[in-house]
Amino acid sequence: MDRPRRPGPTVRAKVRELTEAGERRHEDRLATEEPLEIRLAWPGSPARRVWVTMRTPGHDFELAAGWLVHEGLVRGTGHVASVAYCTDTDLSPEQEFNVVTVTLDAPPLFDPGHRHDTLGSGSSACGVCGKDSVASALTVSAAAHWTGDLPQPDVVRRLPDVLREQQRVFDRTGGVHAAGLFTAAGEPLVVREDVGRHNAVDKVTGARVLAGDPPAEAVMVVSGRAGFELVQKALAAGVGALAAVGAPTSLSAKLAGEAGLVLYGFTSARRCVRYT
Amino acid sequence: MDRPRRPGPTVRAKVRELTEAGERRHEDRLATEEPLEIRLAWPGSPARRVWVTMRTPGHDFELAAGWLVHEGLVRGTGHVASVAYCTDTDLSPEQEFNVVTVTLDAPPLFDPGHRHDTLGSGSSACGVCGKDSVASALTVSAAAHWTGDLPQPDVVRRLPDVLREQQRVFDRTGGVHAAGLFTAAGEPLVVREDVGRHNAVDKVTGARVLAGDPPAEAVMVVSGRAGFELVQKALAAGVGALAAVGAPTSLSAKLAGEAGLVLYGFTSARRCVRYT
Repeated sequence: MDRPRRPGPTVRAKVRELTEAGERRHEDRLATEEPLEIRLAWPGSPARRVWVTMRTPGHDFELAAGWLVHEGLVRGTGHVASVAYCTDTDLSPEQEFNVVTVTLDAPPLFDPGHRHDTLGSGSSACGVCGKDSVASALTVSAAAHWTGDLPQPDVVRRLPDVLREQQRVFDRTGGVHAAGLFTAAGEPLVVREDVGRHNAVDKVTGARVLAGDPPAEAVMVVSGRAGFELVQKALAAGVGALAAVGAPTSLSAKLAGEAGLVLYGFTSARRCVRYT
Repeated sequence: MDRPRRPGPTVRAKVRELTEAGERRHEDRLATEEPLEIRLAWPGSPARRVWVTMRTPGHDFELAAGWLVHEGLVRGTGHVASVAYCTDTDLSPEQEFNVVTVTLDAPPLFDPGHRHDTLGSGSSACGVCGKDSVASALTVSAAAHWTGDLPQPDVVRRLPDVLREQQRVFDRTGGVHAAGLFTAAGEPLVVREDVGRHNAVDKVTGARVLAGDPPAEAVMVVSGRAGFELVQKALAAGVGALAAVGAPTSLSAKLAGEAGLVLYGFTSARRCVRYT
Protein backbone atom coordinates (compact mmCIF):
# COMPACT_ATOMS: atom_id res chain seq x y z
CA MET A 1 0.00 0.00 0.00
CA ASP A 2 1.25 3.45 -0.85
CA ARG A 3 2.01 5.67 2.06
CA PRO A 4 -0.49 8.57 2.07
CA ARG A 5 0.91 11.82 0.75
CA ARG A 6 1.49 14.44 3.40
CA PRO A 7 -0.87 17.39 2.75
CA GLY A 8 0.84 20.51 1.39
CA PRO A 9 0.12 24.15 2.27
CA THR A 10 -1.81 24.82 -0.97
CA VAL A 11 -4.12 22.89 -3.28
CA ARG A 12 -5.22 23.49 -6.88
CA ALA A 13 -8.82 24.47 -7.64
CA LYS A 14 -10.75 25.13 -10.83
CA VAL A 15 -12.46 28.52 -10.59
CA ARG A 16 -14.52 30.97 -12.64
CA GLU A 17 -13.41 34.57 -12.40
CA LEU A 18 -16.33 36.94 -13.05
CA THR A 19 -15.39 40.45 -14.19
CA GLU A 20 -17.18 43.07 -16.28
CA ALA A 21 -15.42 41.55 -19.29
CA GLY A 22 -17.20 38.25 -18.62
CA GLU A 23 -16.32 34.83 -17.27
CA ARG A 24 -12.84 33.33 -17.36
CA ARG A 25 -12.18 29.77 -16.19
CA HIS A 26 -8.76 29.00 -14.82
CA GLU A 27 -6.86 27.13 -12.16
CA ASP A 28 -6.21 28.82 -8.85
CA ARG A 29 -4.41 27.90 -5.66
CA LEU A 30 -6.17 27.77 -2.30
CA ALA A 31 -4.55 27.66 1.13
CA THR A 32 -5.01 24.18 2.55
CA GLU A 33 -7.25 23.99 5.61
CA GLU A 34 -7.35 20.68 7.46
CA PRO A 35 -8.08 19.67 11.03
CA LEU A 36 -5.20 19.03 13.43
CA GLU A 37 -5.83 17.06 16.59
CA ILE A 38 -3.34 17.69 19.39
CA ARG A 39 -2.78 14.90 21.92
CA LEU A 40 -0.78 15.25 25.12
CA ALA A 41 1.06 12.47 26.99
CA TRP A 42 3.34 12.49 30.02
CA PRO A 43 4.98 9.85 32.26
CA GLY A 44 2.24 7.62 33.65
CA SER A 45 -0.48 9.16 31.47
CA PRO A 46 -1.42 7.83 28.02
CA ALA A 47 -1.91 10.29 25.15
CA ARG A 48 -5.21 12.16 25.38
CA ARG A 49 -6.82 14.57 22.96
CA VAL A 50 -6.64 18.17 24.22
CA TRP A 51 -7.61 20.19 21.14
CA VAL A 52 -8.77 20.09 17.55
CA THR A 53 -8.14 23.10 15.32
CA MET A 54 -8.44 23.84 11.61
CA ARG A 55 -5.00 24.73 10.26
CA THR A 56 -2.80 24.96 7.19
CA PRO A 57 -0.55 21.86 7.18
CA GLY A 58 3.12 22.59 7.78
CA HIS A 59 5.02 23.21 11.02
CA ASP A 60 2.44 21.06 12.80
CA PHE A 61 4.82 20.11 15.63
CA GLU A 62 5.46 23.81 16.26
CA LEU A 63 1.74 24.55 16.21
CA ALA A 64 1.10 21.85 18.81
CA ALA A 65 3.98 22.92 21.07
CA GLY A 66 3.17 26.62 20.78
CA TRP A 67 -0.52 26.11 21.50
CA LEU A 68 0.33 24.13 24.65
CA VAL A 69 2.67 26.89 25.86
CA HIS A 70 0.09 29.61 25.12
CA GLU A 71 -2.54 27.64 27.05
CA GLY A 72 -0.20 27.45 30.05
CA LEU A 73 -0.05 23.64 29.95
CA VAL A 74 3.62 23.47 28.97
CA ARG A 75 6.44 25.47 30.53
CA GLY A 76 8.55 25.87 27.42
CA THR A 77 11.86 24.45 26.29
CA GLY A 78 12.94 21.49 28.40
CA HIS A 79 9.40 20.36 29.19
CA VAL A 80 8.72 18.72 25.82
CA ALA A 81 10.30 15.26 25.40
CA SER A 82 9.09 14.54 21.87
CA VAL A 83 6.54 15.49 19.21
CA ALA A 84 5.33 12.97 16.61
CA TYR A 85 2.56 12.24 14.14
CA CYS A 86 0.27 9.49 15.39
CA THR A 87 -0.01 6.10 13.77
CA ASP A 88 -3.10 4.79 15.55
CA THR A 89 -4.60 1.74 13.96
CA ASP A 90 -7.92 3.55 14.42
CA LEU A 91 -6.86 6.38 12.12
CA SER A 92 -7.53 6.29 8.40
CA PRO A 93 -4.31 6.75 6.41
CA GLU A 94 -5.49 10.18 5.22
CA GLN A 95 -5.73 11.36 8.82
CA GLU A 96 -2.28 10.17 9.86
CA PHE A 97 -0.74 13.60 9.34
CA ASN A 98 -3.63 15.35 11.07
CA VAL A 99 -2.97 14.01 14.57
CA VAL A 100 0.10 15.11 16.57
CA THR A 101 1.12 13.76 19.98
CA VAL A 102 3.26 15.91 22.27
CA THR A 103 4.97 13.86 24.98
CA LEU A 104 6.21 15.72 28.06
CA ASP A 105 8.99 14.60 30.39
CA ALA A 106 6.95 15.80 33.39
CA PRO A 107 3.22 16.36 34.03
CA PRO A 108 1.63 19.46 32.44
CA LEU A 109 1.29 22.58 34.61
CA PHE A 110 -2.38 21.70 35.17
CA ASP A 111 -4.60 18.76 34.29
CA PRO A 112 -5.92 19.50 30.78
CA GLY A 113 -9.13 17.59 31.52
CA HIS A 114 -9.83 19.21 34.84
CA ARG A 115 -10.26 22.77 33.69
CA HIS A 116 -12.94 21.78 31.25
CA ASP A 117 -14.96 19.41 33.38
CA THR A 118 -17.16 22.17 34.71
CA LEU A 119 -17.87 23.62 31.29
CA GLY A 120 -20.46 22.53 28.76
CA SER A 121 -18.25 23.72 25.95
CA GLY A 122 -15.54 26.21 25.30
CA SER A 123 -13.42 27.89 22.70
CA SER A 124 -9.70 28.21 22.47
CA ALA A 125 -9.62 30.06 19.22
CA CYS A 126 -11.22 33.06 20.89
CA GLY A 127 -8.87 32.93 23.84
CA VAL A 128 -11.44 32.02 26.44
CA CYS A 129 -11.52 28.25 25.96
CA GLY A 130 -12.11 26.35 29.12
CA LYS A 131 -12.39 29.41 31.27
CA ASP A 132 -15.26 28.52 33.55
CA SER A 133 -16.75 31.99 33.75
CA VAL A 134 -16.67 35.43 32.26
CA ALA A 135 -14.50 36.61 35.14
CA SER A 136 -11.80 33.98 34.72
CA ALA A 137 -11.73 34.54 30.96
CA LEU A 138 -10.35 38.01 31.62
CA THR A 139 -7.52 36.90 33.89
CA VAL A 140 -4.02 37.31 32.51
CA SER A 141 -1.37 35.86 34.77
CA ALA A 142 1.79 36.71 32.88
CA ALA A 143 3.40 40.14 32.79
CA ALA A 144 5.68 41.56 30.13
CA HIS A 145 8.46 44.04 30.78
CA TRP A 146 10.60 45.60 28.12
CA THR A 147 13.66 46.60 30.10
CA GLY A 148 15.91 47.97 27.35
CA ASP A 149 15.21 50.58 24.69
CA LEU A 150 12.01 50.08 22.74
CA PRO A 151 12.35 49.44 19.01
CA GLN A 152 12.66 52.69 17.07
CA PRO A 153 9.38 53.77 15.41
CA ASP A 154 10.89 53.42 11.93
CA VAL A 155 11.87 49.84 12.79
CA VAL A 156 8.31 49.06 13.91
CA ARG A 157 6.84 50.58 10.74
CA ARG A 158 9.10 48.37 8.60
CA LEU A 159 8.03 45.09 10.28
CA PRO A 160 4.87 44.32 8.25
CA ASP A 161 6.74 44.64 4.95
CA VAL A 162 9.47 42.28 6.17
CA LEU A 163 6.78 39.86 7.37
CA ARG A 164 5.02 40.06 4.02
CA GLU A 165 8.24 39.43 2.09
CA GLN A 166 8.64 36.11 3.85
CA GLN A 167 5.09 34.89 3.18
CA ARG A 168 5.41 32.10 0.64
CA VAL A 169 1.87 30.70 0.92
CA PHE A 170 0.28 34.15 0.66
CA ASP A 171 2.17 34.71 -2.59
CA ARG A 172 0.40 31.73 -4.08
CA THR A 173 -3.07 32.06 -2.54
CA GLY A 174 -3.63 35.65 -1.37
CA GLY A 175 -5.39 34.21 1.61
CA VAL A 176 -3.38 33.32 4.68
CA HIS A 177 -2.33 35.10 7.83
CA ALA A 178 1.22 35.38 9.10
CA ALA A 179 2.99 35.96 12.38
CA GLY A 180 6.63 36.62 13.02
CA LEU A 181 9.05 37.19 15.85
CA PHE A 182 11.53 40.04 15.37
CA THR A 183 14.43 41.48 17.36
CA ALA A 184 14.28 45.06 18.61
CA ALA A 185 16.47 45.95 15.63
CA GLY A 186 13.83 44.53 13.25
CA GLU A 187 15.61 41.30 12.31
CA PRO A 188 13.20 38.40 11.69
CA LEU A 189 13.77 35.39 13.96
CA VAL A 190 10.94 33.21 12.65
CA VAL A 191 7.92 33.76 10.37
CA ARG A 192 5.01 31.32 10.01
CA GLU A 193 1.78 31.27 7.97
CA ASP A 194 -1.65 29.72 8.52
CA VAL A 195 -5.27 30.19 7.49
CA GLY A 196 -5.87 30.81 11.21
CA ARG A 197 -4.18 33.93 12.56
CA HIS A 198 -3.98 32.38 16.03
CA ASN A 199 -2.38 29.24 14.61
CA ALA A 200 0.33 31.36 12.96
CA VAL A 201 1.23 32.80 16.39
CA ASP A 202 1.17 29.32 17.93
CA LYS A 203 3.60 28.13 15.24
CA VAL A 204 5.98 31.02 15.90
CA THR A 205 6.08 30.36 19.63
CA GLY A 206 6.36 26.62 19.04
CA ALA A 207 9.30 27.15 16.71
CA ARG A 208 11.11 29.07 19.43
CA VAL A 209 10.18 26.61 22.17
CA LEU A 210 11.38 23.61 20.16
CA ALA A 211 14.61 25.47 19.32
CA GLY A 212 15.18 27.49 22.52
CA ASP A 213 13.06 29.98 24.47
CA PRO A 214 11.99 33.21 22.79
CA PRO A 215 13.93 36.29 23.88
CA ALA A 216 11.81 38.44 26.19
CA GLU A 217 12.59 41.60 24.26
CA ALA A 218 11.29 40.37 20.93
CA VAL A 219 8.39 41.84 18.97
CA MET A 220 5.56 39.54 17.83
CA VAL A 221 4.13 40.84 14.53
CA VAL A 222 0.71 39.70 13.26
CA SER A 223 -0.81 40.30 9.82
CA GLY A 224 -4.33 40.86 11.14
CA ARG A 225 -5.94 42.60 14.05
CA ALA A 226 -4.84 42.32 17.68
CA GLY A 227 -7.70 40.92 19.70
CA PHE A 228 -7.56 40.01 23.36
CA GLU A 229 -6.56 36.43 22.64
CA LEU A 230 -3.43 37.50 20.75
CA VAL A 231 -2.41 39.66 23.70
CA GLN A 232 -2.86 36.57 25.90
CA LYS A 233 -0.68 34.51 23.56
CA ALA A 234 2.00 37.21 23.36
CA LEU A 235 2.12 37.37 27.16
CA ALA A 236 2.24 33.59 27.51
CA ALA A 237 5.04 33.48 24.93
CA GLY A 238 7.00 35.98 26.98
CA VAL A 239 7.53 38.59 24.27
CA GLY A 240 7.74 42.28 25.13
CA ALA A 241 5.77 43.84 22.30
CA LEU A 242 2.96 43.00 19.90
CA ALA A 243 2.61 44.85 16.57
CA ALA A 244 -0.55 44.29 14.50
CA VAL A 245 -1.20 45.37 10.93
CA GLY A 246 -4.84 45.84 11.90
CA ALA A 247 -6.66 47.42 14.82
CA PRO A 248 -6.52 46.40 18.45
CA THR A 249 -9.70 46.07 20.50
CA SER A 250 -10.71 47.78 23.73
CA LEU A 251 -9.83 44.69 25.74
CA SER A 252 -6.50 44.04 24.08
CA ALA A 253 -5.38 47.64 24.76
CA LYS A 254 -6.60 47.44 28.38
CA LEU A 255 -4.93 44.12 29.16
CA ALA A 256 -1.70 44.95 27.32
CA GLY A 257 -1.55 48.11 29.42
CA GLU A 258 -2.12 46.22 32.66
CA ALA A 259 0.46 43.54 31.81
CA GLY A 260 3.14 45.92 30.53
CA LEU A 261 3.01 44.63 26.94
CA VAL A 262 3.88 47.28 24.34
CA LEU A 263 1.04 47.24 21.80
CA TYR A 264 1.11 48.74 18.29
CA GLY A 265 -1.81 48.76 15.86
CA PHE A 266 -2.38 49.88 12.25
CA THR A 267 1.32 49.20 11.68
CA SER A 268 2.45 50.08 8.14
CA ALA A 269 5.32 51.76 6.32
CA ARG A 270 3.51 55.08 6.73
CA ARG A 271 2.59 54.99 10.41
CA CYS A 272 1.95 52.93 13.50
CA VAL A 273 -0.18 53.68 16.53
CA ARG A 274 0.99 52.87 20.04
CA TYR A 275 -1.77 52.02 22.51
CA THR A 276 0.22 51.37 25.70
CA MET B 1 -26.93 52.23 43.51
CA ASP B 2 -26.64 53.34 39.92
CA ARG B 3 -27.49 50.74 37.36
CA PRO B 4 -24.30 49.79 35.47
CA ARG B 5 -24.00 51.39 32.07
CA ARG B 6 -24.50 48.99 29.20
CA PRO B 7 -21.23 48.66 27.23
CA GLY B 8 -21.23 50.39 23.84
CA PRO B 9 -19.67 49.14 20.59
CA THR B 10 -16.69 51.52 20.84
CA VAL B 11 -14.52 53.01 23.60
CA ARG B 12 -12.17 56.00 23.65
CA ALA B 13 -8.42 55.46 23.98
CA LYS B 14 -5.44 57.80 24.24
CA VAL B 15 -2.89 56.83 21.60
CA ARG B 16 0.43 57.96 20.11
CA GLU B 17 0.58 57.96 16.34
CA LEU B 18 4.15 57.49 15.13
CA THR B 19 4.89 58.72 11.60
CA GLU B 20 8.01 59.97 9.87
CA ALA B 21 6.96 63.45 10.94
CA GLY B 22 7.22 62.38 14.58
CA GLU B 23 4.83 61.55 17.41
CA ARG B 24 1.30 62.88 17.69
CA ARG B 25 -0.87 62.14 20.74
CA HIS B 26 -4.57 62.05 20.23
CA GLU B 27 -7.75 60.26 21.18
CA ASP B 28 -8.87 57.30 19.12
CA ARG B 29 -11.82 54.93 19.15
CA LEU B 30 -11.42 51.19 19.60
CA ALA B 31 -14.00 48.51 18.91
CA THR B 32 -15.23 47.17 22.24
CA GLU B 33 -14.32 43.54 22.93
CA GLU B 34 -15.95 41.92 25.95
CA PRO B 35 -16.84 38.35 26.88
CA LEU B 36 -20.38 37.09 26.35
CA GLU B 37 -21.52 34.01 28.17
CA ILE B 38 -24.42 32.16 26.55
CA ARG B 39 -26.69 30.08 28.80
CA LEU B 40 -29.39 27.73 27.58
CA ALA B 41 -32.56 26.71 29.44
CA TRP B 42 -35.56 24.61 28.47
CA PRO B 43 -38.64 23.17 30.22
CA GLY B 44 -37.42 21.05 33.13
CA SER B 45 -33.79 22.12 32.74
CA PRO B 46 -32.27 25.11 34.56
CA ALA B 47 -30.07 27.55 32.63
CA ARG B 48 -26.61 26.13 31.94
CA ARG B 49 -23.58 27.76 30.37
CA VAL B 50 -22.96 26.49 26.84
CA TRP B 51 -20.38 28.95 25.48
CA VAL B 52 -18.22 31.97 26.23
CA THR B 53 -17.05 34.16 23.36
CA MET B 54 -15.30 37.53 23.02
CA ARG B 55 -17.60 39.88 21.16
CA THR B 56 -18.44 43.50 20.43
CA PRO B 57 -21.47 44.39 22.60
CA GLY B 58 -24.67 45.04 20.67
CA HIS B 59 -27.20 42.59 19.22
CA ASP B 60 -26.23 40.15 21.97
CA PHE B 61 -29.56 38.33 21.86
CA GLU B 62 -29.12 37.79 18.13
CA LEU B 63 -25.57 36.55 18.66
CA ALA B 64 -26.76 34.01 21.23
CA ALA B 65 -29.70 32.80 19.10
CA GLY B 66 -27.64 32.64 15.91
CA TRP B 67 -24.79 30.76 17.54
CA LEU B 68 -27.24 28.16 18.90
CA VAL B 69 -28.78 27.68 15.44
CA HIS B 70 -25.35 27.39 13.79
CA GLU B 71 -24.32 24.78 16.35
CA GLY B 72 -27.43 22.76 15.56
CA LEU B 73 -28.82 23.07 19.09
CA VAL B 74 -31.80 25.23 18.12
CA ARG B 75 -34.13 24.61 15.20
CA GLY B 76 -34.85 28.23 14.34
CA THR B 77 -37.85 30.48 14.69
CA GLY B 78 -40.50 28.97 16.96
CA HIS B 79 -38.02 27.08 19.12
CA VAL B 80 -36.84 30.10 21.14
CA ALA B 81 -39.26 31.16 23.90
CA SER B 82 -37.28 34.13 25.25
CA VAL B 83 -33.83 35.74 25.38
CA ALA B 84 -32.73 37.88 28.34
CA TYR B 85 -29.72 39.30 30.12
CA CYS B 86 -29.05 37.48 33.37
CA THR B 87 -29.37 39.06 36.76
CA ASP B 88 -27.69 36.40 38.89
CA THR B 89 -26.88 37.53 42.38
CA ASP B 90 -23.49 35.90 41.73
CA LEU B 91 -22.71 38.30 38.89
CA SER B 92 -20.93 41.56 39.48
CA PRO B 93 -22.96 44.52 38.14
CA GLU B 94 -20.38 45.10 35.37
CA GLN B 95 -20.96 41.57 34.07
CA GLU B 96 -24.74 41.81 33.99
CA PHE B 97 -24.78 42.66 30.29
CA ASN B 98 -22.21 39.99 29.47
CA VAL B 99 -24.41 36.98 30.25
CA VAL B 100 -27.40 36.08 28.07
CA THR B 101 -29.87 33.27 28.74
CA VAL B 102 -31.80 31.74 25.84
CA THR B 103 -34.89 29.85 27.00
CA LEU B 104 -36.37 27.28 24.62
CA ASP B 105 -39.97 26.08 24.59
CA ALA B 106 -38.76 22.50 23.91
CA PRO B 107 -35.49 20.64 24.56
CA PRO B 108 -32.52 21.45 22.28
CA LEU B 109 -31.88 19.17 19.31
CA PHE B 110 -29.12 17.45 21.31
CA ASP B 111 -27.84 17.68 24.87
CA PRO B 112 -25.27 20.52 24.86
CA GLY B 113 -23.32 18.85 27.68
CA HIS B 114 -23.27 15.40 26.16
CA ARG B 115 -21.30 16.17 23.04
CA HIS B 116 -18.44 17.57 25.06
CA ASP B 117 -18.17 14.97 27.79
CA THR B 118 -15.72 12.86 25.84
CA LEU B 119 -13.49 15.77 24.93
CA GLY B 120 -10.72 17.33 26.98
CA SER B 121 -11.36 20.68 25.39
CA GLY B 122 -12.71 22.14 22.21
CA SER B 123 -13.16 25.22 20.18
CA SER B 124 -16.28 26.69 18.69
CA ALA B 125 -14.68 29.69 17.12
CA CYS B 126 -12.82 27.47 14.70
CA GLY B 127 -15.90 25.48 13.80
CA VAL B 128 -14.78 22.20 15.28
CA CYS B 129 -15.82 22.77 18.89
CA GLY B 130 -16.95 19.67 20.63
CA LYS B 131 -16.42 17.43 17.67
CA ASP B 132 -14.95 14.36 19.28
CA SER B 133 -12.57 13.50 16.50
CA VAL B 134 -10.97 14.78 13.34
CA ALA B 135 -13.46 12.77 11.29
CA SER B 136 -16.57 14.18 12.91
CA ALA B 137 -15.19 17.72 12.63
CA LEU B 138 -15.48 17.41 8.88
CA THR B 139 -19.10 16.28 8.82
CA VAL B 140 -21.57 18.72 7.36
CA SER B 141 -25.15 17.56 7.67
CA ALA B 142 -27.03 20.37 5.97
CA ALA B 143 -27.30 20.83 2.22
CA ALA B 144 -27.95 24.03 0.32
CA HIS B 145 -29.79 24.24 -2.97
CA TRP B 146 -30.27 27.40 -4.93
CA THR B 147 -33.31 26.51 -7.03
CA GLY B 148 -33.93 29.80 -8.87
CA ASP B 149 -31.56 31.94 -10.91
CA LEU B 150 -28.25 32.73 -9.23
CA PRO B 151 -27.53 36.37 -8.48
CA GLN B 152 -26.07 38.16 -11.50
CA PRO B 153 -22.26 38.59 -11.31
CA ASP B 154 -22.57 42.38 -11.22
CA VAL B 155 -24.92 42.06 -8.23
CA VAL B 156 -22.40 39.85 -6.40
CA ARG B 157 -19.55 42.28 -7.12
CA ARG B 158 -21.57 45.14 -5.61
CA LEU B 159 -22.28 43.35 -2.31
CA PRO B 160 -19.08 44.23 -0.39
CA ASP B 161 -19.55 47.95 -1.06
CA VAL B 162 -23.14 47.82 0.17
CA LEU B 163 -21.98 45.90 3.25
CA ARG B 164 -19.25 48.44 3.90
CA GLU B 165 -21.67 51.38 3.56
CA GLN B 166 -23.71 49.98 6.42
CA GLN B 167 -20.76 49.47 8.79
CA ARG B 168 -21.16 52.08 11.50
CA VAL B 169 -18.60 50.70 13.96
CA PHE B 170 -15.95 50.29 11.24
CA ASP B 171 -16.36 53.96 10.34
CA ARG B 172 -15.29 54.90 13.84
CA THR B 173 -12.63 52.27 14.56
CA GLY B 174 -11.32 50.83 11.29
CA GLY B 175 -11.23 47.48 13.01
CA VAL B 176 -14.31 45.29 12.93
CA HIS B 177 -15.68 42.61 10.68
CA ALA B 178 -19.14 42.60 9.17
CA ALA B 179 -21.58 40.06 7.80
CA GLY B 180 -24.80 40.67 5.92
CA LEU B 181 -27.67 38.78 4.39
CA PHE B 182 -28.75 39.94 0.91
CA THR B 183 -31.48 38.99 -1.53
CA ALA B 184 -30.57 37.59 -4.94
CA ALA B 185 -31.22 41.10 -6.28
CA GLY B 186 -28.57 42.52 -3.91
CA GLU B 187 -30.93 44.14 -1.39
CA PRO B 188 -29.54 44.04 2.17
CA LEU B 189 -31.81 42.22 4.65
CA VAL B 190 -29.62 42.60 7.74
CA VAL B 191 -26.01 43.71 8.39
CA ARG B 192 -24.13 43.19 11.67
CA GLU B 193 -20.64 44.03 12.94
CA ASP B 194 -18.31 42.43 15.47
CA VAL B 195 -14.61 42.15 16.30
CA GLY B 196 -15.09 38.45 15.65
CA ARG B 197 -15.99 37.60 12.07
CA HIS B 198 -17.84 34.46 13.19
CA ASN B 199 -19.84 36.47 15.70
CA ALA B 200 -20.97 38.84 12.95
CA VAL B 201 -22.41 35.86 11.04
CA ASP B 202 -24.04 34.54 14.24
CA LYS B 203 -25.69 37.94 14.75
CA VAL B 204 -27.04 37.98 11.20
CA THR B 205 -28.58 34.54 11.51
CA GLY B 206 -29.89 35.34 14.98
CA ALA B 207 -31.54 38.51 13.69
CA ARG B 208 -33.40 36.47 11.09
CA VAL B 209 -34.31 33.69 13.50
CA LEU B 210 -35.68 36.11 16.08
CA ALA B 211 -37.63 37.91 13.34
CA GLY B 212 -38.53 35.01 10.99
CA ASP B 213 -36.46 32.35 9.22
CA PRO B 214 -33.88 33.43 6.65
CA PRO B 215 -34.92 32.93 3.04
CA ALA B 216 -33.12 29.93 1.54
CA GLU B 217 -32.10 31.87 -1.54
CA ALA B 218 -30.27 34.62 0.28
CA VAL B 219 -26.56 35.43 0.00
CA MET B 220 -24.46 35.66 3.16
CA VAL B 221 -21.67 38.22 2.67
CA VAL B 222 -18.61 38.33 4.96
CA SER B 223 -15.93 41.02 5.15
CA GLY B 224 -13.06 38.57 5.70
CA ARG B 225 -12.03 35.21 4.35
CA ALA B 226 -14.30 32.17 4.01
CA GLY B 227 -12.91 29.37 6.12
CA PHE B 228 -14.54 26.02 6.64
CA GLU B 229 -16.41 27.18 9.73
CA LEU B 230 -18.17 29.97 7.83
CA VAL B 231 -19.33 27.44 5.25
CA GLN B 232 -20.68 25.36 8.15
CA LYS B 233 -22.53 28.38 9.55
CA ALA B 234 -23.93 29.35 6.14
CA LEU B 235 -25.24 25.81 5.66
CA ALA B 236 -26.73 25.68 9.16
CA ALA B 237 -28.38 29.06 8.54
CA GLY B 238 -29.95 27.67 5.38
CA VAL B 239 -28.65 30.30 2.95
CA GLY B 240 -27.90 29.38 -0.65
CA ALA B 241 -24.69 31.32 -1.27
CA LEU B 242 -21.68 32.68 0.62
CA ALA B 243 -19.66 35.61 -0.75
CA ALA B 244 -16.39 36.51 0.96
CA VAL B 245 -14.26 39.61 0.42
CA GLY B 246 -11.21 37.46 1.12
CA ALA B 247 -10.04 34.02 0.01
CA PRO B 248 -11.70 30.69 0.67
CA THR B 249 -9.68 27.72 1.89
CA SER B 250 -9.27 24.26 0.37
CA LEU B 251 -11.75 22.79 2.83
CA SER B 252 -14.38 25.50 2.45
CA ALA B 253 -14.38 25.09 -1.34
CA LYS B 254 -14.56 21.28 -1.01
CA LEU B 255 -17.41 21.25 1.48
CA ALA B 256 -19.38 24.03 -0.19
CA GLY B 257 -19.15 21.99 -3.38
CA GLU B 258 -20.35 18.82 -1.66
CA ALA B 259 -23.24 20.59 0.06
CA GLY B 260 -24.38 22.61 -2.96
CA LEU B 261 -23.52 25.99 -1.44
CA VAL B 262 -22.54 28.61 -4.03
CA LEU B 263 -19.20 30.05 -2.87
CA TYR B 264 -17.60 33.32 -4.05
CA GLY B 265 -14.22 34.64 -2.92
CA PHE B 266 -12.14 37.78 -3.54
CA THR B 267 -15.44 39.59 -4.07
CA SER B 268 -15.00 43.26 -5.00
CA ALA B 269 -16.38 45.86 -7.39
CA ARG B 270 -13.80 44.72 -9.95
CA ARG B 271 -14.21 40.96 -9.84
CA CYS B 272 -15.37 37.91 -7.93
CA VAL B 273 -14.24 34.32 -8.13
CA ARG B 274 -16.70 31.45 -8.03
CA TYR B 275 -15.38 28.22 -6.49
CA THR B 276 -18.41 25.92 -6.77
